[in-house]
Amino acid sequence: MVNANIIRAARAILNVTNLEESRRFYVHALGFIETDSDENHIYLRGLEEHIHHSLVLKKSDHPSVEVISYKVFSDDDLDTLSAFFSAKGLEIKWMEAGTQKAIGRTLRVQDVSGLPIEFFAEMETVERLLQRYDLYKGARIQRIDHFNCAVKDVEKAYKFYIEELGFSCSEYTTAEDDKIWAAWLHRKPTVHDVAFMNGVGPRLHHIGFWLSDPMSVIHTCDVLASLGYGASIERGPGRHGLSNAFFLYLRDPDGHRIELYNGDYLTSDPDFKPVRWDLDDPMRQTLWGHAAPDCWFNEASTVLNILSGEAEMIGDPILEKKKPTIIN
Amino acid sequence: MVNANIIRAARAILNVTNLEESRRFYVHALGFIETDSDENHIYLRGLEEHIHHSLVLKKSDHPSVEVISYKVFSDDDLDTLSAFFSAKGLEIKWMEAGTQKAIGRTLRVQDVSGLPIEFFAEMETVERLLQRYDLYKGARIQRIDHFNCAVKDVEKAYKFYIEELGFSCSEYTTAEDDKIWAAWLHRKPTVHDVAFMNGVGPRLHHIGFWLSDPMSVIHTCDVLASLGYGASIERGPGRHGLSNAFFLYLRDPDGHRIELYNGDYLTSDPDFKPVRWDLDDPMRQTLWGHAAPDCWFNEASTVLNILSGEAEMIGDPILEKKKPTIIN
Amino acid sequence: MVNANIIRAARAILNVTNLEESRRFYVHALGFIETDSDENHIYLRGLEEHIHHSLVLKKSDHPSVEVISYKVFSDDDLDTLSAFFSAKGLEIKWMEAGTQKAIGRTLRVQDVSGLPIEFFAEMETVERLLQRYDLYKGARIQRIDHFNCAVKDVEKAYKFYIEELGFSCSEYTTAEDDKIWAAWLHRKPTVHDVAFMNGVGPRLHHIGFWLSDPMSVIHTCDVLASLGYGASIERGPGRHGLSNAFFLYLRDPDGHRIELYNGDYLTSDPDFKPVRWDLDDPMRQTLWGHAAPDCWFNEASTVLNILSGEAEMIGDPILEKKKPTIIN
Amino acid sequence: MVNANIIRAARAILNVTNLEESRRFYVHALGFIETDSDENHIYLRGLEEHIHHSLVLKKSDHPSVEVISYKVFSDDDLDTLSAFFSAKGLEIKWMEAGTQKAIGRTLRVQDVSGLPIEFFAEMETVERLLQRYDLYKGARIQRIDHFNCAVKDVEKAYKFYIEELGFSCSEYTTAEDDKIWAAWLHRKPTVHDVAFMNGVGPRLHHIGFWLSDPMSVIHTCDVLASLGYGASIERGPGRHGLSNAFFLYLRDPDGHRIELYNGDYLTSDPDFKPVRWDLDDPMRQTLWGHAAPDCWFNEASTVLNILSGEAEMIGDPILEKKKPTIIN
Repeated sequence: MVNANIIRAARAILNVTNLEESRRFYVHALGFIETDSDENHIYLRGLEEHIHHSLVLKKSDHPSVEVISYKVFSDDDLDTLSAFFSAKGLEIKWMEAGTQKAIGRTLRVQDVSGLPIEFFAEMETVERLLQRYDLYKGARIQRIDHFNCAVKDVEKAYKFYIEELGFSCSEYTTAEDDKIWAAWLHRKPTVHDVAFMNGVGPRLHHIGFWLSDPMSVIHTCDVLASLGYGASIERGPGRHGLSNAFFLYLRDPDGHRIELYNGDYLTSDPDFKPVRWDLDDPMRQTLWGHAAPDCWFNEASTVLNILSGEAEMIGDPILEKKKPTIIN
Repeated sequence: MVNANIIRAARAILNVTNLEESRRFYVHALGFIETDSDENHIYLRGLEEHIHHSLVLKKSDHPSVEVISYKVFSDDDLDTLSAFFSAKGLEIKWMEAGTQKAIGRTLRVQDVSGLPIEFFAEMETVERLLQRYDLYKGARIQRIDHFNCAVKDVEKAYKFYIEELGFSCSEYTTAEDDKIWAAWLHRKPTVHDVAFMNGVGPRLHHIGFWLSDPMSVIHTCDVLASLGYGASIERGPGRHGLSNAFFLYLRDPDGHRIELYNGDYLTSDPDFKPVRWDLDDPMRQTLWGHAAPDCWFNEASTVLNILSGEAEMIGDPILEKKKPTIIN
Repeated sequence: MVNANIIRAARAILNVTNLEESRRFYVHALGFIETDSDENHIYLRGLEEHIHHSLVLKKSDHPSVEVISYKVFSDDDLDTLSAFFSAKGLEIKWMEAGTQKAIGRTLRVQDVSGLPIEFFAEMETVERLLQRYDLYKGARIQRIDHFNCAVKDVEKAYKFYIEELGFSCSEYTTAEDDKIWAAWLHRKPTVHDVAFMNGVGPRLHHIGFWLSDPMSVIHTCDVLASLGYGASIERGPGRHGLSNAFFLYLRDPDGHRIELYNGDYLTSDPDFKPVRWDLDDPMRQTLWGHAAPDCWFNEASTVLNILSGEAEMIGDPILEKKKPTIIN
Repeated sequence: MVNANIIRAARAILNVTNLEESRRFYVHALGFIETDSDENHIYLRGLEEHIHHSLVLKKSDHPSVEVISYKVFSDDDLDTLSAFFSAKGLEIKWMEAGTQKAIGRTLRVQDVSGLPIEFFAEMETVERLLQRYDLYKGARIQRIDHFNCAVKDVEKAYKFYIEELGFSCSEYTTAEDDKIWAAWLHRKPTVHDVAFMNGVGPRLHHIGFWLSDPMSVIHTCDVLASLGYGASIERGPGRHGLSNAFFLYLRDPDGHRIELYNGDYLTSDPDFKPVRWDLDDPMRQTLWGHAAPDCWFNEASTVLNILSGEAEMIGDPILEKKKPTIIN
């Protein structure tokens, strides 16, 4: 196992086609704080975040995911990770300090599933607005929480993140022959920093943001409806059986999926046994029994190659079932 | 217009096939207060109700609705209503005090839509449990709020309740040729005591109960799921565009539909203009754009004839559209 | 009893010394909707209100209350009330349509306690913003709910409003010799449109505004603190034993007291027995046992004479106890 | 710094004088789950806890605190800590597996402030009831969160826990000459596992338990009032400036103080700068400006010596101010 200390899921860079449309959705409707912007970027953060941003919206011709990023404990961890990934034969790329706004040098890698991953130790700090309640609006986004990715081989990703990168598993789903169909993995002691689901991949399924309380989820729906974003509400609100979160899934103007999320639990203890769910358990997805729409299973964001900047090739997953068989 | 003072929707008698199953659902899961029971009846009320019951579950071979009841201001109002309904040629039936538990004499009538309606002035009062928060559980039902009925001719029902019985309209829906497809009518100054929707009728679509706050709706879903009642959640939680209520629709063990409801508005003012909605406005049903399932439109409870006790004959509605055409 | 149909508590005119300071408090912090303003007035309403305003802030050298107003069913009711008050020997004053913004003719009277009361039937209607959730901020004020007044002789006021004006009593407090120390009276079927408390009077103790849910009370405290209004929070949040409301008391920049309020109950039924509380019951004021600060009992707004516009003379109440004796 | 991995605050043993009275308060009113009990003990846990207990109530002649306990990563950590504390000259005591119910061997130490601390790696696991929403009642306690202790020398405690035991500081308070008056320290990435406040000590000020949402705090007050526990509510509900938590302080039947707590933030990042508060900042204690009662500052639970079982000697703190000087 690599001897590097990964702290948590920390930011993502989403390519979007219209910055003004995106600003209206993320800032005006959802209430993200806009730390900064320029002609080609908007830098967003949640109300409790003390670092410059957790989400970058970048002007592009096509929607896609440039990278999803983890914060590490110290700059040395980046060198350790670099050596480790190279030894594993994975493509890496250094982004030196100054090439990206407000952030120190970063290490990018195309991971075992083909996902574009980035690690960094330093980002500019800014005023935390946690107690500026007068600025709370929309969803009152608190902080980034996790990434959820569709990959072709969940067990491969699971093993790499657990055995090589030191993640822990909180919950998982099994399907045919007890194979792992999906897994929720964490470094910080919440349910997850990253989840992998069996599906056409590699693709980013969604980015999860943490809200302070369940009523903020309800209010978000009301605000979105008032602003004409009813069609952006893809699924929920509801309670996940898996993770126990009270959730809402939205699609941004480019189709990127955002989860608003409140209510998981502490996973600090080494003797915590990962919770196993059967893919067809009707309470797994939504404790209340509601089925997710097909688009929730089929659609996800394209991810880019860290070197070429081209869309990463996708393929079918190795487990046959792409969604639960719900028998009502 | 009849010179009688109807106060509000006040109780219903539901015929159910298994009292123990019904008790588990209404008392154990939803948290209704059981005022009393005998071999063939369970008498239920909400936490703020000071009268003996607002819901009677009655043992029967088949599920159906015996009657839905309104409270009137004084006993004299019953005589006035009796004379009025007789003059209109409607079938009436007196139930003398002592023939029904805890309630004075009642007047029953098969209304212009064929619905079995009852009026009463007096019911035994009991301890109000509003501030016995230690007894709050499940949905924390506060009080009965309204009835929703499927009828063949909404305009006919609308005119009778408005022009003859003195109800006011808060909101309504129009379809083909601006005909009234549904209407929300009230005596107490909330959105409604009764609503009529165009559909196969006469049938009772649902009984609405008032909750104290939106989080109780969410908690109800969680409790129902924990107790294995996930399949009883038919629709919601969501926000109605029409009425602005935060709602949840449940099906009881016999299929009777219960709405849990929080968040409408004051309708006291004579200059309040009824809100008009187009049947196909996607925000009408659910402000957030979610479609209701087909069963919500197609299924409803059989109502009985007040004299024969037999199921009232049902028929197709006069407006063709039985549900909105949602174009996503 | 006068044969006029009073609908509900509907608006108040508060004299304030600095319109900009008041706007910052009511509009920016509390989230009232500003319907209109001119050099000397700001007209405010809540999110569900369809009439032009429920609160007028009027530029003045000294803070005071010009009038508190009730809406009546029809214009004829005003003539009926005028004749009635004149026959009772009370001072009245007509304000013709056009003399006050957005409102038809009004009838003012100095009531039996010396309070400046106004009645009106017509006010301009405006767009109701109930479903403009994107405009919700601060306390998310929904509507005006009630007035609370300190008077010298509560029993006299109680009898006049009940026996002459047709109000009903929901709850009351007794002190020495079972005399009525305070009473909560209503026309609309909530706990109250007006309350009278034994105290140095006549003065306006507070105006109550209805919120949609208890979390809005909590959020209001957070927002006020963020904006430097911590000292404006006088009492609460807490649960009143009396009325069961979840409450918060604020003092505006001129010291006028505003109650934010959620959670009372339906009082539609003629057989509802008014709830009696003993003045010294520790659960009466705050169900949880918290004592109110002395200023809450001692301070209230000056009211004006409807004819002279001068401050109405105040005097000591006839019951000796001006506040509960809390024995902890 | 000791090379041992302390996971989190994990349990406490409170000596109480009447087990039945305590059960009524903790289980019946607050909704703790009773895992087990015998003649002299009640073992309690929260709804999300998967280990046997987080609170032990132990029958005793006098109320006191036997020990507060931290969970460590592995059994080896106990030996490391034992050697470390012995080298520091602190009194230690081993409790072998089998001597305490459901828990492996534990290491006890009287820490630098004289507090009785315990470390353990293993405890029996039990069914986690997180999704048994039908069992939720009262405060819906989720899990233990932190200990707050009054000590004579906060800086000494601060340095020992930070520099020797590897805790991190999230927030702190300074008084005279910028000396640390109080400090909030954590191992798990929340605001704290333990806080130290300048006061007569060593004493345990309170144990904090985590709730799932702010409405549970409000409901707890209502339930406590209904059950006659109004006098047990010592302070709140309110929002702490320090930690941002929405809080409620209760006193159990023996006077032990319990905090119910929701809403802090993630403290995972090494570059997070501890938040500094001035003792006299009126927003520090309660963001909304409410002062805490004197008893909250003056009263705390006696702690015992780990060897003698006798009350640990207490003394005055080295900083003069025992509470803020609030200037209103």
